[in-house]
Amino acid sequence: MRALIYRSPGVVEVGEVPRPALLAPTDAIVKVSLAGICGTDLHVVRGDFPGLVAGAVVGHEFVGEVVEAGSALQRLRVGDPVMSSDFTACGHCRWCDDGDHWHCDQRAFFGTGTAFGPALGGAQAEYVRVPHADTTLGLLPPDCPSEAALLMGDNLATGWVAVERAATAPGDCVVVIGGGAVGQLTALSAQAAAAGIVLVVEPNAQRRAFAEAHGSLAAHPDQAPALVRRLTGGVGAEVVLEAVGGNGPLDLALALARPRARIVSVGAHVAESWAFPVARGFRDELSLGFAIGDGIRLRRRLLRMVTGGTLDPTVVIDARGTLADAPAFYRQLAAQTLLKAVVTL
Amino acid sequence: MRALIYRSPGVVEVGEVPRPALLAPTDAIVKVSLAGICGTDLHVVRGDFPGLVAGAVVGHEFVGEVVEAGSALQRLRVGDPVMSSDFTACGHCRWCDDGDHWHCDQRAFFGTGTAFGPALGGAQAEYVRVPHADTTLGLLPPDCPSEAALLMGDNLATGWVAVERAATAPGDCVVVIGGGAVGQLTALSAQAAAAGIVLVVEPNAQRRAFAEAHGSLAAHPDQAPALVRRLTGGVGAEVVLEAVGGNGPLDLALALARPRARIVSVGAHVAESWAFPVARGFRDELSLGFAIGDGIRLRRRLLRMVTGGTLDPTVVIDARGTLADAPAFYRQLAAQTLLKAVVTL
Amino acid sequence: MRALIYRSPGVVEVGEVPRPALLAPTDAIVKVSLAGICGTDLHVVRGDFPGLVAGAVVGHEFVGEVVEAGSALQRLRVGDPVMSSDFTACGHCRWCDDGDHWHCDQRAFFGTGTAFGPALGGAQAEYVRVPHADTTLGLLPPDCPSEAALLMGDNLATGWVAVERAATAPGDCVVVIGGGAVGQLTALSAQAAAAGIVLVVEPNAQRRAFAEAHGSLAAHPDQAPALVRRLTGGVGAEVVLEAVGGNGPLDLALALARPRARIVSVGAHVAESWAFPVARGFRDELSLGFAIGDGIRLRRRLLRMVTGGTLDPTVVIDARGTLADAPAFYRQLAAQTLLKAVVTL
Amino acid sequence: MRALIYRSPGVVEVGEVPRPALLAPTDAIVKVSLAGICGTDLHVVRGDFPGLVAGAVVGHEFVGEVVEAGSALQRLRVGDPVMSSDFTACGHCRWCDDGDHWHCDQRAFFGTGTAFGPALGGAQAEYVRVPHADTTLGLLPPDCPSEAALLMGDNLATGWVAVERAATAPGDCVVVIGGGAVGQLTALSAQAAAAGIVLVVEPNAQRRAFAEAHGSLAAHPDQAPALVRRLTGGVGAEVVLEAVGGNGPLDLALALARPRARIVSVGAHVAESWAFPVARGFRDELSLGFAIGDGIRLRRRLLRMVTGGTLDPTVVIDARGTLADAPAFYRQLAAQTLLKAVVTL
Repeated sequence: MRALIYRSPGVVEVGEVPRPALLAPTDAIVKVSLAGICGTDLHVVRGDFPGLVAGAVVGHEFVGEVVEAGSALQRLRVGDPVMSSDFTACGHCRWCDDGDHWHCDQRAFFGTGTAFGPALGGAQAEYVRVPHADTTLGLLPPDCPSEAALLMGDNLATGWVAVERAATAPGDCVVVIGGGAVGQLTALSAQAAAAGIVLVVEPNAQRRAFAEAHGSLAAHPDQAPALVRRLTGGVGAEVVLEAVGGNGPLDLALALARPRARIVSVGAHVAESWAFPVARGFRDELSLGFAIGDGIRLRRRLLRMVTGGTLDPTVVIDARGTLADAPAFYRQLAAQTLLKAVVTL
Repeated sequence: MRALIYRSPGVVEVGEVPRPALLAPTDAIVKVSLAGICGTDLHVVRGDFPGLVAGAVVGHEFVGEVVEAGSALQRLRVGDPVMSSDFTACGHCRWCDDGDHWHCDQRAFFGTGTAFGPALGGAQAEYVRVPHADTTLGLLPPDCPSEAALLMGDNLATGWVAVERAATAPGDCVVVIGGGAVGQLTALSAQAAAAGIVLVVEPNAQRRAFAEAHGSLAAHPDQAPALVRRLTGGVGAEVVLEAVGGNGPLDLALALARPRARIVSVGAHVAESWAFPVARGFRDELSLGFAIGDGIRLRRRLLRMVTGGTLDPTVVIDARGTLADAPAFYRQLAAQTLLKAVVTL
Repeated sequence: MRALIYRSPGVVEVGEVPRPALLAPTDAIVKVSLAGICGTDLHVVRGDFPGLVAGAVVGHEFVGEVVEAGSALQRLRVGDPVMSSDFTACGHCRWCDDGDHWHCDQRAFFGTGTAFGPALGGAQAEYVRVPHADTTLGLLPPDCPSEAALLMGDNLATGWVAVERAATAPGDCVVVIGGGAVGQLTALSAQAAAAGIVLVVEPNAQRRAFAEAHGSLAAHPDQAPALVRRLTGGVGAEVVLEAVGGNGPLDLALALARPRARIVSVGAHVAESWAFPVARGFRDELSLGFAIGDGIRLRRRLLRMVTGGTLDPTVVIDARGTLADAPAFYRQLAAQTLLKAVVTL
Repeated sequence: MRALIYRSPGVVEVGEVPRPALLAPTDAIVKVSLAGICGTDLHVVRGDFPGLVAGAVVGHEFVGEVVEAGSALQRLRVGDPVMSSDFTACGHCRWCDDGDHWHCDQRAFFGTGTAFGPALGGAQAEYVRVPHADTTLGLLPPDCPSEAALLMGDNLATGWVAVERAATAPGDCVVVIGGGAVGQLTALSAQAAAAGIVLVVEPNAQRRAFAEAHGSLAAHPDQAPALVRRLTGGVGAEVVLEAVGGNGPLDLALALARPRARIVSVGAHVAESWAFPVARGFRDELSLGFAIGDGIRLRRRLLRMVTGGTLDPTVVIDARGTLADAPAFYRQLAAQTLLKAVVTL
């Protein structure tokens, strides 16, 4: 089958690989109809993640149709249209029972080497094998557009979980750090959740313009502290959602937070250590949390929100093509001239 | 001073009454700048409420400025621009401490006779005396339009409390029964709170059109059951918010509710008894609650929502005039040719 | 196999019936080690429920071991010790996905005829067939006593759901109407959930004594209104949990409720109609809900509570025997000389 | 009047100072009947806090009776028995309106110099001046023991806020770091809030014994990691509540936390910086918050809990005396041979 294949750090290309087969009775094989390219994929192709061997298929955002179903599947049948979480979970352990699927021992992350579990083939391909398919996949209802469903498996699930974990309350002033696809969906989620002012902090002028065109305020990081002070009577934001990753953005988050602020970071962090100003954290009674997209737990809620018209995540998609376009999309995403690209298979 | 005066059942007119004076050290006198006419006022002028004597001033929605302040006021000062709850509360008893201000022993309701506590002069007047002013009134910040603040004291507080008490969750299908000012603000509140589909059920075609123009679906009561079934895969709505009052609308609410639905009624109820289908309520695990606008507790949250752009309640105002226009506005509101009228003083 | 068999209204006896077999790949056969007798069973044997044919096996509370496992089971294996919900649910539909398992289309209730779904063999037997076993059953961990696990499938799940649905807050005054096994477990659940005063209202003196011996106050229904007034400064209870069923207990619940009280009924209701005092409900902003034990959704939480020592439900068990003792236990339970009986198989 | 007076670092003694007088119309003068000695006071007398001048009165935990009431007080009257928060708040600003009293601009902390606001005389004295008395003080109801009320102003408010801020859920495994008065009350609060296992981690054997005698497990910090692993199937605690302060206890908190754990610190922190392991925090989706006792907001709830029998905070008091005993109590508290001392005035 055709797939986007990792060759070496920085090099991906479209090529042929063997079509995956069922390996367990709880597996499904999905024929992919639409796949997304995520910011995480840029790390993948740069070779930032361990365990990604040459020849591996990349990609973890997809929707499609079940074409083979393991004998133990209870929910899914061949022919079912499906949406997918970007990672797998068994659905039956104590973590899954509590809705904490990311911490399931059976977690694997599609197309990202061994960074987040055992290696699992990616989804920028004609077919993908889905372990624990009854849990990892959800039925795609006819009233949900494919592009929206694709975003629910990762980017929107991440944006929404940030809003939810921060206990964003109606009228709260919410600052989102980062105006990439996840940041923009975080901002749209905050708006949907009745936040008051939503401010996207982002150096890229095009991305600031996008935020402003979609109901948020926007500011360059250098201007953000003064603006937040002005917007909040000098005290800072009730909620700060960090969607970039790294210690610098966390420091900025602190600088924008008022006493009793809730700060949630959904950006990725690889640093051993971050110097947290603990006396200030105590004095201001700050709360700080880290969260990873909860696509399995949130699937039903996100579906209801999208089909009910609460929010439309597809506005972030600004590039559509076929698999042949994927290598170019990767370059444009790395250059930040695109926000979100999807490819039809 | 000039005021709208109740003469007899069905008769209100503009006239002169004595300007109110401070009676307690926790009172304030407010010079009214803007007053609203509420559906409740229609009951008042019809003579539906006890204790409204000829010559009484009508009205309970207002914003203005403090012109006299009792000696024990801690929060307010002469010159403060203020918004008001439609009822008073002491701010210091166990009910107030718990945010249940409506049940305060010191409750009085402006301009409604003795239906909801001891008689208290109304606010469709140049001046109004406000007992327990530190609690009953809130500071009106410069970034909040007067018309929005006026609505927060009653109609929006009622709409929002319905949404809140029903624990409306993101993506929920919400049915609002009644398309008057409160019903429309309930629908807008539900949208703000990330509801999915919001459907306003209302016989008046003009009001249905208003709902549709402001982000909701709308249906005539006769069509509502079939439409709700179609919208919800046959099971009914997760949330039904009743904003009319009376047993008929409650029956309709039940007819539109799915298993485990939360039904909240913010319409007024005067019937001794309502035949509740208890076997069905048990089988479907229904929840049913009654709520009254919580303007004091919700003031800060509503202010943040309005000034943050979460929702704009002023869209329901379709008539603006002076006190001289009030009698005509009453007639038009009774005829349902207006949705919401406000008068400048 | 040996089982407790329904012969005719009022007549149950121990006898032989065929051992059940797997009928679907998601079924399991459980060898029962412990079965409980529930108040609901008294209705069953009286012939109150439709569809219970002569020869049917009674009972819906059990723990045991999986001895046959359908080929599609993902979670359970032969040899697993298991606890069970008293009803079945598929685990994969929209109701199950939302935690509303009782409303699953695949619901069946063990040993109760067709009152709550298609007929399904009961569990007061050596073996029981369990549909949708991955969802209906839970793994019984070694640190949880069998008797506690047995109670989690119905009585404790019912008591806890009452407390949870009423949003019982720390320090709340909670009245429980009914001192049977469910009522007592409701009271213990309220205590565990940080309620303040917990009062059990019950005519049976022995059951009042049990409540008093286990951390609650107790009162005869005739004395309850005066006592609640005295305990609450005249205003009534914040939370009233009705665990008997029928309109009379609901009327009593209203009589004990303060303004803004939350009333939750977990008693069974078969009446077409109940005269609800709607003007009072509105004036006092009452909330009223009906709830059915949520054993599948609550399983993990209840397990943690019991194994962590939060509460010990087994204190309600005051009769232990073998299947041969079951007919006598039924009589004693009907006479209210027992609170809760369990039989070893 | 007689009072406990700070002389120099390490030196406190009983002596005479002028009786305080009303300075503002919202002040009250309280005749103290019972005062507590808090761990914070040990820092005070060591001279750790700035702005405490020689001759200042120490102490911030007290109950008593209003003997003078400012003219603007709305709630309190001369003769009222009162309990107090350990800090003042105006009750009328946006922070107070939101329940965030600690961040009120009018905050002052009794008897602690200028560390937490402008200097304010302490409460280990016959009389104390209470600014913003309507908010800072609460009425002490007759059914609440004075000793319990005393603890609600600081230590219990701190313990409970830890449990609350961590969203402690029924059945959660809760680890409390520190077995001083606050740690023990945190553990008792966790038990009251339906936690499962509660483990107090504390080096002092006597304090571990106290925890074990009051419903918790206890472990020396060196043994805690292994014990928590054993108690939680190897994964760590859902909730870790840090009640000591300093970076070491925070490091220990992290070591005991499972993925998605909520860590709340109510210990005091003065370090500029703490090395937070951010990659681990992200990978495990940790939440970390800092909290300060919320005595004003929590007063009503704590009163209901104590008078309803939910928990008895007075068990931590192991020394009772008069003001003359206070210097000795300070020494014993510093030596950790006492847990909590109160003095009658």
